[in-house]
Amino acid sequence: MYTRPLARLIEELQHLPGIGPKTAQRLAFHLLKRPRPEARQLAQAIVEATEQIGVCSRCFNLSAEDPCSLCSQTGRQFEQICVVAEPRDLVAIERTREYKGLYHVLGGLINPMEGIGPEQLRIKELFNRVGTEEIKEVILAINPSVEGEMTTLFLGKNLKVLGARVTRIAFGLPVGGDLEYADEMTLARALEGRREI
Amino acid sequence: MYTRPLARLIEELQHLPGIGPKTAQRLAFHLLKRPRPEARQLAQAIVEATEQIGVCSRCFNLSAEDPCSLCSQTGRQFEQICVVAEPRDLVAIERTREYKGLYHVLGGLINPMEGIGPEQLRIKELFNRVGTEEIKEVILAINPSVEGEMTTLFLGKNLKVLGARVTRIAFGLPVGGDLEYADEMTLARALEGRREI
Repeated sequence: MYTRPLARLIEELQHLPGIGPKTAQRLAFHLLKRPRPEARQLAQAIVEATEQIGVCSRCFNLSAEDPCSLCSQTGRQFEQICVVAEPRDLVAIERTREYKGLYHVLGGLINPMEGIGPEQLRIKELFNRVGTEEIKEVILAINPSVEGEMTTLFLGKNLKVLGARVTRIAFGLPVGGDLEYADEMTLARALEGRREI
Repeated sequence: MYTRPLARLIEELQHLPGIGPKTAQRLAFHLLKRPRPEARQLAQAIVEATEQIGVCSRCFNLSAEDPCSLCSQTGRQFEQICVVAEPRDLVAIERTREYKGLYHVLGGLINPMEGIGPEQLRIKELFNRVGTEEIKEVILAINPSVEGEMTTLFLGKNLKVLGARVTRIAFGLPVGGDLEYADEMTLARALEGRREI
Protein backbone atom coordinates (compact mmCIF):
# COMPACT_ATOMS: atom_id res chain seq x y z
CA MET A 1 0.00 0.00 0.00
CA TYR A 2 2.89 2.38 0.83
CA THR A 3 6.04 2.83 -1.21
CA ARG A 4 8.93 1.28 0.74
CA PRO A 5 10.65 4.38 2.21
CA LEU A 6 7.25 5.69 3.28
CA ALA A 7 6.37 2.40 4.99
CA ARG A 8 9.67 2.58 6.84
CA LEU A 9 9.11 6.18 7.93
CA ILE A 10 5.63 5.33 9.23
CA GLU A 11 7.06 2.33 11.06
CA GLU A 12 9.77 4.44 12.73
CA LEU A 13 7.31 7.17 13.73
CA GLN A 14 5.17 4.53 15.41
CA HIS A 15 7.98 3.84 17.87
CA LEU A 16 7.32 7.26 19.41
CA PRO A 17 5.13 7.30 22.53
CA GLY A 18 1.46 7.99 21.88
CA ILE A 19 1.87 7.72 18.11
CA GLY A 20 -0.32 4.98 16.60
CA PRO A 21 -0.58 3.90 12.95
CA LYS A 22 -3.05 6.65 11.99
CA THR A 23 -1.01 9.48 13.52
CA ALA A 24 2.22 8.05 12.13
CA GLN A 25 0.68 8.06 8.64
CA ARG A 26 -0.49 11.64 9.09
CA LEU A 27 2.93 12.80 10.26
CA ALA A 28 4.70 10.98 7.40
CA PHE A 29 2.41 12.48 4.74
CA HIS A 30 2.88 15.88 6.35
CA LEU A 31 6.68 15.57 6.19
CA LEU A 32 6.47 14.63 2.51
CA LYS A 33 4.00 17.36 1.65
CA ARG A 34 6.14 20.13 3.13
CA PRO A 35 9.23 21.39 1.29
CA ARG A 36 12.05 18.85 1.60
CA PRO A 37 14.41 21.05 3.70
CA GLU A 38 11.79 21.28 6.42
CA ALA A 39 11.73 17.51 6.96
CA ARG A 40 15.52 17.37 6.80
CA GLN A 41 15.77 19.99 9.53
CA LEU A 42 13.82 17.68 11.80
CA ALA A 43 16.12 14.78 10.92
CA GLN A 44 19.14 16.97 11.57
CA ALA A 45 17.76 18.17 14.90
CA ILE A 46 17.34 14.54 15.97
CA VAL A 47 20.87 13.62 14.92
CA GLU A 48 22.41 16.69 16.58
CA ALA A 49 20.47 16.13 19.78
CA THR A 50 21.62 12.50 20.00
CA GLU A 51 25.22 13.48 19.22
CA GLN A 52 25.54 16.55 21.42
CA ILE A 53 23.37 15.86 24.44
CA GLY A 54 24.79 13.86 27.28
CA VAL A 55 24.27 14.18 31.02
CA CYS A 56 25.77 16.67 33.44
CA SER A 57 28.34 14.82 35.56
CA ARG A 58 27.10 16.60 38.65
CA CYS A 59 23.27 16.58 38.52
CA PHE A 60 22.72 14.13 35.61
CA ASN A 61 20.32 16.44 33.85
CA LEU A 62 20.37 16.22 30.03
CA SER A 63 22.88 18.75 28.79
CA ALA A 64 25.15 19.59 25.88
CA GLU A 65 27.65 21.12 28.32
CA ASP A 66 29.27 19.66 31.40
CA PRO A 67 28.59 20.92 33.99
CA CYS A 68 25.12 21.89 32.80
CA SER A 69 23.89 25.47 32.71
CA LEU A 70 21.97 25.01 35.96
CA CYS A 71 24.94 23.66 37.91
CA SER A 72 27.20 26.43 36.59
CA GLN A 73 24.66 29.25 36.90
CA THR A 74 25.73 31.90 39.38
CA GLY A 75 23.16 32.97 41.92
CA ARG A 76 21.70 29.52 42.55
CA GLN A 77 21.53 28.21 46.09
CA PHE A 78 24.17 25.50 46.11
CA GLU A 79 23.14 24.15 49.50
CA GLN A 80 19.77 22.85 48.25
CA ILE A 81 19.32 19.79 46.03
CA CYS A 82 15.97 18.88 44.52
CA VAL A 83 15.85 15.18 43.61
CA VAL A 84 13.68 14.22 40.62
CA ALA A 85 13.15 10.99 38.68
CA GLU A 86 13.45 12.33 35.12
CA PRO A 87 14.63 15.47 33.29
CA ARG A 88 11.01 16.34 32.45
CA ASP A 89 10.28 16.65 36.20
CA LEU A 90 13.16 19.11 36.50
CA VAL A 91 11.67 21.13 33.65
CA ALA A 92 8.29 21.19 35.41
CA ILE A 93 9.89 22.56 38.59
CA GLU A 94 12.02 25.11 36.74
CA ARG A 95 8.83 26.39 35.12
CA THR A 96 7.48 27.49 38.50
CA ARG A 97 10.45 29.92 38.85
CA GLU A 98 10.11 29.32 42.58
CA TYR A 99 13.10 27.09 43.12
CA LYS A 100 16.64 28.44 43.03
CA GLY A 101 18.67 25.47 44.25
CA LEU A 102 20.37 22.65 42.36
CA TYR A 103 18.93 19.38 41.08
CA HIS A 104 19.75 15.72 40.97
CA VAL A 105 18.15 13.54 38.30
CA LEU A 106 17.86 9.90 39.33
CA GLY A 107 17.11 8.59 35.84
CA GLY A 108 14.11 6.56 36.99
CA LEU A 109 12.54 5.04 40.10
CA ILE A 110 13.24 1.91 42.11
CA ASN A 111 11.12 -0.82 40.53
CA PRO A 112 11.90 -4.38 41.63
CA MET A 113 9.33 -5.80 39.16
CA GLU A 114 11.44 -4.46 36.30
CA GLY A 115 14.73 -5.21 38.00
CA ILE A 116 15.56 -1.58 38.71
CA GLY A 117 17.32 -1.30 42.07
CA PRO A 118 19.15 1.67 43.62
CA GLU A 119 22.35 0.71 41.77
CA GLN A 120 20.67 1.25 38.36
CA LEU A 121 19.85 4.84 39.32
CA ARG A 122 22.07 7.83 40.13
CA ILE A 123 21.60 7.23 43.86
CA LYS A 124 25.21 6.49 44.77
CA GLU A 125 26.10 9.77 43.05
CA LEU A 126 23.45 11.59 45.11
CA PHE A 127 24.87 10.20 48.35
CA ASN A 128 28.34 11.28 47.17
CA ARG A 129 27.11 14.80 46.55
CA VAL A 130 25.40 15.01 49.93
CA GLY A 131 28.59 13.69 51.54
CA THR A 132 31.01 16.05 49.79
CA GLU A 133 29.07 19.23 48.82
CA GLU A 134 27.79 21.55 51.53
CA ILE A 135 24.15 20.48 51.27
CA LYS A 136 21.71 21.83 53.85
CA GLU A 137 18.49 20.38 52.42
CA VAL A 138 17.53 17.58 50.05
CA ILE A 139 14.03 18.08 48.61
CA LEU A 140 12.45 14.93 47.19
CA ALA A 141 10.15 15.82 44.29
CA ILE A 142 9.05 12.35 43.31
CA ASN A 143 5.62 11.22 42.09
CA PRO A 144 3.44 9.54 44.71
CA SER A 145 3.25 6.26 42.73
CA VAL A 146 4.13 2.85 44.20
CA GLU A 147 7.65 3.08 42.74
CA GLY A 148 7.89 6.72 43.79
CA GLU A 149 6.99 5.93 47.39
CA MET A 150 9.52 3.10 47.46
CA THR A 151 12.24 5.39 46.12
CA THR A 152 11.30 8.20 48.51
CA LEU A 153 11.42 5.86 51.52
CA PHE A 154 14.79 4.46 50.45
CA LEU A 155 16.29 7.89 49.87
CA GLY A 156 14.79 9.39 53.03
CA LYS A 157 16.23 6.66 55.24
CA ASN A 158 19.71 6.72 53.73
CA LEU A 159 20.01 10.48 53.40
CA LYS A 160 19.13 10.97 57.06
CA VAL A 161 21.95 8.58 57.97
CA LEU A 162 24.24 10.98 56.10
CA GLY A 163 22.96 13.75 58.34
CA ALA A 164 21.08 15.73 55.68
CA ARG A 165 17.78 17.51 56.22
CA VAL A 166 15.34 15.71 53.90
CA THR A 167 12.00 17.18 52.87
CA ARG A 168 9.33 16.13 50.41
CA ILE A 169 7.05 18.25 48.24
CA ALA A 170 3.45 18.49 49.46
CA PHE A 171 0.57 16.45 48.08
CA GLY A 172 -2.99 17.67 48.36
CA LEU A 173 -5.82 19.40 46.57
CA PRO A 174 -4.54 21.02 43.36
CA VAL A 175 -5.03 24.78 43.04
CA GLY A 176 -8.32 25.27 41.20
CA GLY A 177 -9.38 21.78 42.29
CA ASP A 178 -12.71 20.99 43.91
CA LEU A 179 -13.12 19.07 47.17
CA GLU A 180 -16.20 17.37 45.79
CA TYR A 181 -14.36 15.89 42.84
CA ALA A 182 -11.01 15.10 44.47
CA ASP A 183 -10.23 11.38 44.78
CA GLU A 184 -9.95 9.80 48.23
CA MET A 185 -6.16 9.39 48.07
CA THR A 186 -5.62 13.05 47.29
CA LEU A 187 -8.01 14.19 50.01
CA ALA A 188 -6.42 11.86 52.54
CA ARG A 189 -3.02 13.32 51.62
CA ALA A 190 -4.43 16.86 51.89
CA LEU A 191 -5.79 16.16 55.39
CA GLU A 192 -2.58 14.50 56.48
CA GLY A 193 -0.56 17.48 55.26
CA ARG A 194 -2.76 20.15 56.88
CA ARG A 195 -1.00 23.19 58.34
CA GLU A 196 -1.74 25.88 60.89
CA ILE A 197 -3.15 29.08 59.43
CA MET B 1 15.46 25.76 30.53
CA TYR B 2 16.49 23.28 27.84
CA THR B 3 20.01 22.67 26.62
CA ARG B 4 20.31 24.16 23.11
CA PRO B 5 20.11 21.02 20.89
CA LEU B 6 17.15 19.84 22.96
CA ALA B 7 15.35 23.18 22.55
CA ARG B 8 15.90 22.92 18.80
CA LEU B 9 14.59 19.35 18.65
CA ILE B 10 11.45 20.33 20.59
CA GLU B 11 10.99 23.31 18.27
CA GLU B 12 11.27 21.13 15.15
CA LEU B 13 8.89 18.51 16.52
CA GLN B 14 6.31 21.24 17.13
CA HIS B 15 6.13 21.86 13.39
CA LEU B 16 4.40 18.50 13.02
CA PRO B 17 0.60 18.60 12.84
CA GLY B 18 -1.17 17.99 16.15
CA ILE B 19 2.08 18.19 18.15
CA GLY B 20 2.01 20.96 20.75
CA PRO B 21 4.76 22.01 23.18
CA LYS B 22 3.92 19.33 25.76
CA THR B 23 3.87 16.47 23.27
CA ALA B 24 7.00 17.76 21.54
CA GLN B 25 8.80 17.76 24.89
CA ARG B 26 7.61 14.23 25.62
CA LEU B 27 8.76 12.97 22.21
CA ALA B 28 12.16 14.68 22.56
CA PHE B 29 12.79 13.23 26.01
CA HIS B 30 11.71 9.83 24.72
CA LEU B 31 14.17 10.02 21.82
CA LEU B 32 16.98 10.91 24.22
CA LYS B 33 16.08 8.24 26.76
CA ARG B 34 16.11 5.41 24.21
CA PRO B 35 19.42 4.03 22.89
CA ARG B 36 21.00 6.49 20.45
CA PRO B 37 20.73 4.25 17.32
CA GLU B 38 16.95 4.15 17.72
CA ALA B 39 16.62 7.92 17.39
CA ARG B 40 19.08 7.93 14.48
CA GLN B 41 17.00 5.34 12.65
CA LEU B 42 14.08 7.75 12.75
CA ALA B 43 16.30 10.55 11.43
CA GLN B 44 17.57 8.28 8.68
CA ALA B 45 14.05 7.19 7.73
CA ILE B 46 13.07 10.85 7.35
CA VAL B 47 16.10 11.63 5.19
CA GLU B 48 15.63 8.54 3.00
CA ALA B 49 11.93 9.23 2.55
CA THR B 50 12.60 12.81 1.46
CA GLU B 51 15.40 11.69 -0.88
CA GLN B 52 13.75 8.67 -2.46
CA ILE B 53 10.06 9.49 -2.61
CA GLY B 54 8.76 11.51 -5.52
CA VAL B 55 5.49 11.29 -7.38
CA CYS B 56 4.41 8.80 -10.04
CA SER B 57 4.38 10.63 -13.37
CA ARG B 58 1.10 8.96 -14.29
CA CYS B 59 -1.14 9.10 -11.21
CA PHE B 60 0.90 11.49 -8.99
CA ASN B 61 0.74 9.20 -5.99
CA LEU B 62 3.79 9.35 -3.70
CA SER B 63 6.22 6.71 -4.88
CA ALA B 64 9.89 5.73 -4.85
CA GLU B 65 9.43 4.16 -8.31
CA ASP B 66 8.06 5.65 -11.50
CA PRO B 67 5.53 4.49 -12.56
CA CYS B 68 4.32 3.59 -9.07
CA SER B 69 3.49 0.05 -8.02
CA LEU B 70 -0.25 0.65 -8.51
CA CYS B 71 0.10 1.96 -12.06
CA SER B 72 2.41 -0.91 -13.03
CA GLN B 73 0.50 -3.64 -11.20
CA THR B 74 -0.91 -6.28 -13.55
CA GLY B 75 -4.54 -7.18 -13.04
CA ARG B 76 -5.79 -3.69 -12.32
CA GLN B 77 -8.63 -2.26 -14.37
CA PHE B 78 -6.94 0.35 -16.48
CA GLU B 79 -10.19 1.85 -17.77
CA GLN B 80 -11.22 3.22 -14.35
CA ILE B 81 -9.64 6.22 -12.67
CA CYS B 82 -10.45 7.18 -9.09
CA VAL B 83 -9.66 10.86 -8.45
CA VAL B 84 -8.58 11.80 -4.93
CA ALA B 85 -7.25 15.00 -3.36
CA GLU B 86 -4.31 13.56 -1.39
CA PRO B 87 -2.26 10.36 -1.18
CA ARG B 88 -3.87 9.58 2.19
CA ASP B 89 -7.28 9.36 0.49
CA LEU B 90 -5.85 6.84 -1.95
CA VAL B 91 -4.59 4.78 1.00
CA ALA B 92 -8.06 4.87 2.58
CA ILE B 93 -9.64 3.54 -0.62
CA GLU B 94 -6.96 0.89 -1.15
CA ARG B 95 -7.69 -0.35 2.36
CA THR B 96 -11.24 -1.31 1.37
CA ARG B 97 -9.78 -3.82 -1.17
CA GLU B 98 -12.91 -3.12 -3.21
CA TYR B 99 -11.43 -0.96 -5.92
CA LYS B 100 -9.24 -2.42 -8.64
CA GLY B 101 -8.84 0.51 -11.01
CA LEU B 102 -6.19 3.23 -11.22
CA TYR B 103 -5.92 6.51 -9.32
CA HIS B 104 -5.21 10.14 -9.93
CA VAL B 105 -3.98 12.31 -7.04
CA LEU B 106 -4.83 16.00 -7.47
CA GLY B 107 -2.49 17.22 -4.73
CA GLY B 108 -5.15 19.39 -3.12
CA LEU B 109 -8.51 21.02 -3.77
CA ILE B 110 -9.53 24.17 -5.56
CA ASN B 111 -9.48 26.93 -2.94
CA PRO B 112 -9.73 30.50 -4.26
CA MET B 113 -9.32 31.90 -0.72
CA GLU B 114 -5.81 30.45 -0.61
CA GLY B 115 -5.10 31.16 -4.26
CA ILE B 116 -5.29 27.52 -5.34
CA GLY B 117 -6.89 27.26 -8.77
CA PRO B 118 -7.12 24.28 -11.17
CA GLU B 119 -3.67 25.11 -12.58
CA GLN B 120 -2.02 24.53 -9.16
CA LEU B 121 -3.41 20.99 -9.08
CA ARG B 122 -2.81 17.94 -11.32
CA ILE B 123 -6.02 18.65 -13.21
CA LYS B 124 -4.49 19.29 -16.64
CA GLU B 125 -2.72 15.95 -16.26
CA LEU B 126 -6.03 14.27 -15.41
CA PHE B 127 -7.67 15.69 -18.53
CA ASN B 128 -4.66 14.46 -20.54
CA ARG B 129 -5.07 10.96 -19.17
CA VAL B 130 -8.80 10.90 -19.89
CA GLY B 131 -8.06 12.17 -23.41
CA THR B 132 -5.29 9.68 -24.21
CA GLU B 133 -5.84 6.54 -22.07
CA GLU B 134 -8.85 4.34 -22.69
CA ILE B 135 -10.82 5.52 -19.69
CA LYS B 136 -14.42 4.32 -19.31
CA GLU B 137 -15.19 5.83 -15.91
CA VAL B 138 -13.81 8.59 -13.71
CA ILE B 139 -14.83 8.16 -10.06
CA LEU B 140 -14.56 11.32 -7.97
CA ALA B 141 -13.72 10.41 -4.35
CA ILE B 142 -13.47 13.90 -2.92
CA ASN B 143 -14.55 15.10 0.54
CA PRO B 144 -17.91 16.92 0.65
CA SER B 145 -16.32 20.14 1.98
CA VAL B 146 -16.80 23.56 0.35
CA GLU B 147 -13.50 23.19 -1.54
CA GLY B 148 -14.33 19.57 -2.34
CA GLU B 149 -17.69 20.49 -3.84
CA MET B 150 -16.09 23.23 -5.90
CA THR B 151 -13.45 20.84 -7.22
CA THR B 152 -16.01 18.13 -7.91
CA LEU B 153 -18.23 20.53 -9.87
CA PHE B 154 -15.29 21.80 -11.90
CA LEU B 155 -14.03 18.31 -12.69
CA GLY B 156 -17.50 16.94 -13.45
CA LYS B 157 -18.28 19.67 -15.94
CA ASN B 158 -14.96 19.48 -17.78
CA LEU B 159 -14.64 15.70 -17.79
CA LYS B 160 -18.09 15.34 -19.33
CA VAL B 161 -16.99 17.64 -22.14
CA LEU B 162 -14.20 15.12 -22.77
CA GLY B 163 -16.87 12.44 -23.12
CA ALA B 164 -16.00 10.47 -19.99
CA ARG B 165 -18.52 8.83 -17.69
CA VAL B 166 -18.11 10.63 -14.38
CA THR B 167 -19.41 9.24 -11.06
CA ARG B 168 -19.04 10.29 -7.49
CA ILE B 169 -18.83 8.18 -4.31
CA ALA B 170 -22.00 8.07 -2.21
CA PHE B 171 -22.58 10.19 0.89
CA GLY B 172 -25.03 9.10 3.53
CA LEU B 173 -25.41 7.40 6.89
CA PRO B 174 -22.16 5.64 7.85
CA VAL B 175 -22.37 1.89 8.45
CA GLY B 176 -22.94 1.43 12.18
CA GLY B 177 -24.31 4.98 12.32
CA ASP B 178 -27.56 5.93 14.00
CA LEU B 179 -30.33 7.97 12.31
CA GLU B 180 -31.03 9.72 15.60
CA TYR B 181 -27.48 11.05 15.92
CA ALA B 182 -26.74 11.78 12.28
CA ASP B 183 -26.35 15.46 11.43
CA GLU B 184 -28.85 17.13 9.09
CA MET B 185 -26.41 17.43 6.19
CA THR B 186 -25.59 13.75 6.26
CA LEU B 187 -29.27 12.77 6.50
CA ALA B 188 -30.20 15.12 3.67
CA ARG B 189 -27.48 13.52 1.54
CA ALA B 190 -28.69 10.05 2.52
CA LEU B 191 -32.26 10.88 1.48
CA GLU B 192 -31.11 12.48 -1.75
CA GLY B 193 -29.01 9.41 -2.59
CA ARG B 194 -31.74 6.85 -1.84
CA ARG B 195 -31.99 3.80 -4.08
CA GLU B 196 -34.59 1.18 -5.03
CA ILE B 197 -34.42 -2.03 -3.02
